[in-house]
Amino acid sequence: MSEAISPLATPFPALPMIAGVTPRVARARYKEWDRCDLTFVELAEGTSVAGVFTRNICCSSEVELGRAHVAQGLARALVVNAGNSNAFTGYRGREAVEQIMDQVAAHLGCAREQVFVSSTGVIGVPLPKDKAKAGVEAALTAQPCNWLDAANTIGTTDTFAKGATATAIIGRQKVTFSAIIKGSGMIAPDMATMLGYIFTDANVAPALLQRLLSKAADATFNCITVDSDTSTSDTVLAFATGKAAHARLEDESSEGADAFAAALHDICRQLAHLVVKDGEGAQKFIAVSVSGAVSDKSARKIGMAIANSPLVKTAIAGQDANWGRIVMAVGKAGEPADRDKLSIGFGGVWQAKDGQPLPDYDEAPVAAHLQGQEISIEVDIGLGQGRATVWTCDLTHGYISINADYRS
Amino acid sequence: MSEAISPLATPFPALPMIAGVTPRVARARYKEWDRCDLTFVELAEGTSVAGVFTRNICCSSEVELGRAHVAQGLARALVVNAGNSNAFTGYRGREAVEQIMDQVAAHLGCAREQVFVSSTGVIGVPLPKDKAKAGVEAALTAQPCNWLDAANTIGTTDTFAKGATATAIIGRQKVTFSAIIKGSGMIAPDMATMLGYIFTDANVAPALLQRLLSKAADATFNCITVDSDTSTSDTVLAFATGKAAHARLEDESSEGADAFAAALHDICRQLAHLVVKDGEGAQKFIAVSVSGAVSDKSARKIGMAIANSPLVKTAIAGQDANWGRIVMAVGKAGEPADRDKLSIGFGGVWQAKDGQPLPDYDEAPVAAHLQGQEISIEVDIGLGQGRATVWTCDLTHGYISINADYRS
Repeated sequence: MSEAISPLATPFPALPMIAGVTPRVARARYKEWDRCDLTFVELAEGTSVAGVFTRNICCSSEVELGRAHVAQGLARALVVNAGNSNAFTGYRGREAVEQIMDQVAAHLGCAREQVFVSSTGVIGVPLPKDKAKAGVEAALTAQPCNWLDAANTIGTTDTFAKGATATAIIGRQKVTFSAIIKGSGMIAPDMATMLGYIFTDANVAPALLQRLLSKAADATFNCITVDSDTSTSDTVLAFATGKAAHARLEDESSEGADAFAAALHDICRQLAHLVVKDGEGAQKFIAVSVSGAVSDKSARKIGMAIANSPLVKTAIAGQDANWGRIVMAVGKAGEPADRDKLSIGFGGVWQAKDGQPLPDYDEAPVAAHLQGQEISIEVDIGLGQGRATVWTCDLTHGYISINADYRS
Repeated sequence: MSEAISPLATPFPALPMIAGVTPRVARARYKEWDRCDLTFVELAEGTSVAGVFTRNICCSSEVELGRAHVAQGLARALVVNAGNSNAFTGYRGREAVEQIMDQVAAHLGCAREQVFVSSTGVIGVPLPKDKAKAGVEAALTAQPCNWLDAANTIGTTDTFAKGATATAIIGRQKVTFSAIIKGSGMIAPDMATMLGYIFTDANVAPALLQRLLSKAADATFNCITVDSDTSTSDTVLAFATGKAAHARLEDESSEGADAFAAALHDICRQLAHLVVKDGEGAQKFIAVSVSGAVSDKSARKIGMAIANSPLVKTAIAGQDANWGRIVMAVGKAGEPADRDKLSIGFGGVWQAKDGQPLPDYDEAPVAAHLQGQEISIEVDIGLGQGRATVWTCDLTHGYISINADYRS
């Protein structure tokens, strides 16, 4: 947490503890720093787990093993290492992860497959086994901590602690979600991976939890971009302890499954937005809403082409309603579009319609909107019913300073 | 030509005039400036033409008509407007282009289809017909100019004039190429499109010229990137007047076709490199060479993922041999790769092999290499025989300043 705090930062919310979830933190000293850098979260027996992981094929051992472990559906513990991503470290890196899993499994008396490990930080250096061992040892017996401590401990280059909460009613029973996340962007020589963890006391079958998490992630985490780059370690895990007194959600038709899915989606959206708001150098939060595409998928692809365009992102940084750059980004997305049916607006004011600038376009409200911190861009393709919204931040001198202005 | 000259600029070469090619320039005053902004190049009867155009589907009328006109194979004239791209202007923009074509065709007594028009500059404003008419009128009767004048006249936000020449021997006859280009990047409210024009006195059938240009463009213009954004007007045209006294090149088996193809490829590569060297904010020219991919196509896709990565580009700006960011970019390319077979080097020195950092890696020569202006990155995927080289520039504060630090 070394950089200046993001101007888009929000205060850490009051996150309730979740029945069956006990977070603890410790100092493994993966780097030369005096802060907690190892998070250990103990989960009640019978906790369901689901996960979504980076699509980067050069992924870390943590991701490989996590993906395999999620398949069996149950979790007893989560360990997060900060300061060393353990990525690109071959078999030695994998051994360190397995050592942590075995150490925790032995302590809890569970299978190795029920222990989940994430790491974030410098790459190319195998996670030091001795530091990991002592750190885990300390964490296993530490006093339980609150969510703010845990959120700070999983952070690396984050400029503020990020958490979110939500509730849902399932069969007259209130269930609660608390979640923490770190990210985004990458800062050399560290990779500031996105790692998110969602905890709930709801009682949910693992397969259903996985389907609902995948669906929610698709419309939230998979709809954000900071700089188009993808970490080798991105991970979001959801844990449901089943401590709430409601009938188990077995599938989408179970009573309350809709409410649970809505709350899960809400918390994923909150977390995803927090990641964008801590984007490297971000000064503005940008929502790009695309309508009228031939399909939702096509709309999202067009939205991401806009959100990833350096020219669009610098225009927003410059508070410039540069619709020409948006035309350009739509055209390069590789999706069906027709120049003469395209409409583009900012902050709800159409600037160009049907492929031509509006002659009576009123610049004043758009200029005022672009001076704010939350910017919206509306694009209508004019071809169909496909819709999507994606989120990003602007591209500023801050991004260059963080990522270029150093020597290794 | 308003920005500071690129540190990667090279002096304009001595470009020979080409038999059958007569360039002239004039003032159409598309903007409030006192400079020539309309280029008219007259071509001898029987000149073959070939073209490659932007893949951006929101393209300009100039591109739509140019693509159609190239199909008939012959050219008598080229007109280039600077200061107004005429993009996203609907039918009114198209009418302005057709007016220019008709005006030139009437003067030369040729078909409209043999006149090629390009425009670059502000978008969303139809090219003013009156200014275009007067400008063309002046150009038709102006004194012939040299290539440097023409190169300056097609330029907009370019920081230096860009030209290239080459020769080939076809059946004991020397043929000559002279070429000019403008670009790259886009600068608001102008779009700084890439427009390139190659002139040769060689005698080449249009169909062969098109095949050879497409092939050369694929390995040169399609292998460069400044910021991953694609102009709506990018165009490269090749004109062969047939004035050289050699037997016509009809197909790839014609005597000298190989030599012609090699020279065309060489001039395309020169032009493409010049565009990168005038990339917005560029301080370093970067060649990314990928080997060991499953195919050449796969290698290029991986190379472009690296060349487009903001994190890689900022690392080079920071003179940092950050191989972790290259691993990340390889992994997100969506192409076959294996973390444990990947090798990465800078300036010919391997830093990581088979997925792990080299323990005896010598930083000194790499650090020296990264302090230079011409940077090479080598990536071996370790899976096959596919190879590709792509070129880009670094991402600096200059890019942000040019693209964000203004108000419209």
